Amino acid sequence: MNIEHVARIADLNARYADAIDADRLESWPDFILDSGRYRVTTAENVAQGLPLSMIYATSRAMLRDRVAALRDANVYEGQHYRHVLGMPLIRAVESDGLWARTSFMVARIMLNGETVLFATGCYEDRVILCGTSGSLFAEKTVVLDSRQIDTLLAIPL
Amino acid sequence: MNIEHVARIADLNARYADAIDADRLESWPDFILDSGRYRVTTAENVAQGLPLSMIYATSRAMLRDRVAALRDANVYEGQHYRHVLGMPLIRAVESDGLWARTSFMVARIMLNGETVLFATGCYEDRVILCGTSGSLFAEKTVVLDSRQIDTLLAIPL
Amino acid sequence: MNIEHVARIADLNARYADAIDADRLESWPDFILDSGRYRVTTAENVAQGLPLSMIYATSRAMLRDRVAALRDANVYEGQHYRHVLGMPLIRAVESDGLWARTSFMVARIMLNGETVLFATGCYEDRVILCGTSGSLFAEKTVVLDSRQIDTLLAIPL
Repeated sequence: MNIEHVARIADLNARYADAIDADRLESWPDFILDSGRYRVTTAENVAQGLPLSMIYATSRAMLRDRVAALRDANVYEGQHYRHVLGMPLIRAVESDGLWARTSFMVARIMLNGETVLFATGCYEDRVILCGTSGSLFAEKTVVLDSRQIDTLLAIPL
Repeated sequence: MNIEHVARIADLNARYADAIDADRLESWPDFILDSGRYRVTTAENVAQGLPLSMIYATSRAMLRDRVAALRDANVYEGQHYRHVLGMPLIRAVESDGLWARTSFMVARIMLNGETVLFATGCYEDRVILCGTSGSLFAEKTVVLDSRQIDTLLAIPL
Repeated sequence: MNIEHVARIADLNARYADAIDADRLESWPDFILDSGRYRVTTAENVAQGLPLSMIYATSRAMLRDRVAALRDANVYEGQHYRHVLGMPLIRAVESDGLWARTSFMVARIMLNGETVLFATGCYEDRVILCGTSGSLFAEKTVVLDSRQIDTLLAIPL
């Protein structure tokens, strides 16, 4: 275990989650490489080797479009998230990056204050380390534990 | 990102949460400077710039009074908390301290064993670093995600 | 606070939890010393000094038997867990190991996708540090906050 690697992945994911939880969605795509891949799927799909995804984007531009659509449709008005993340497990070290897995729980808080445990799962991340705080996700796969996912999966996870 | 800073804030908050979760409330004020500030508010109040607080204390002595009142009234008999905290994000570094934000989830466990996700939010902390394990909160603001807060908000968060 | 110690305990527990959450139960006993002790109890029992345990095993072989029985009985078909852990608190440093406490929340995800906050508590661990990633639990005591524990406590916590 390399403490520096673990700390940098943990910091990147903490800043990523903070952007979402504080409703700074416009900065969410900035955590992904220009040509990065963002995907939301389920543990069941992964276990069966199925390429099915609830969300699949292959560039930062696609994520920007998604944020614009969310803001325009305003579908998630009155709700926000709170992420709590576990420690990253470094899965592989490559010449230009790292693979890491990080467990998460996400609570959803509605405008009236109602709070529920909304989603659990793990991030499977490929991270390109750049400078002190300039690391980015080359791939971010959100693997949800539950297949019973809200059809209004509006806010990124 | 400075690993030393992150680790020290995480350690301080872990010990703070452990004191509460293990019902050592008498040691809770010891985590705050003598002239420290402790405040519980909501994300909504913060977003609107409102100075409203559910709890507001401006000294360690006020926190001691609060603990004495809690013990005396015994209002929270039969419940305790479990905190799980995320990694701190260092927000600013000053000559004598640090500003950090830390996400939390708190479960409440009743005497009969019933367990619910009770509160989510983040700590906005100003921490004075002193020695190896002598760091203290100069300010601790508990920002709750939900405005639907239990009126029996008895145990400190 | 020794960052190296904290990071190694956090890493060990993250790998431990990952083995359970990913249903690699056969590798779960490998985290415990051959002659290690694994115990599940409640905060209430601990507070009253009672030696009562829901599960008590005094060797790795007993844990292997337990896994075999679980696989055979298949009682937990259709459910799995998601752990999120806090930062470890180092409680004592001995010549050959460390005592640490780590808070946890565990969600249970049923086959139909239903997700609940299943258990909260803390690990009281005695860890033998060996090499870079060869640390093991000499003792692992799972202290549950709630006494209302599912009688089908099948998957290890």
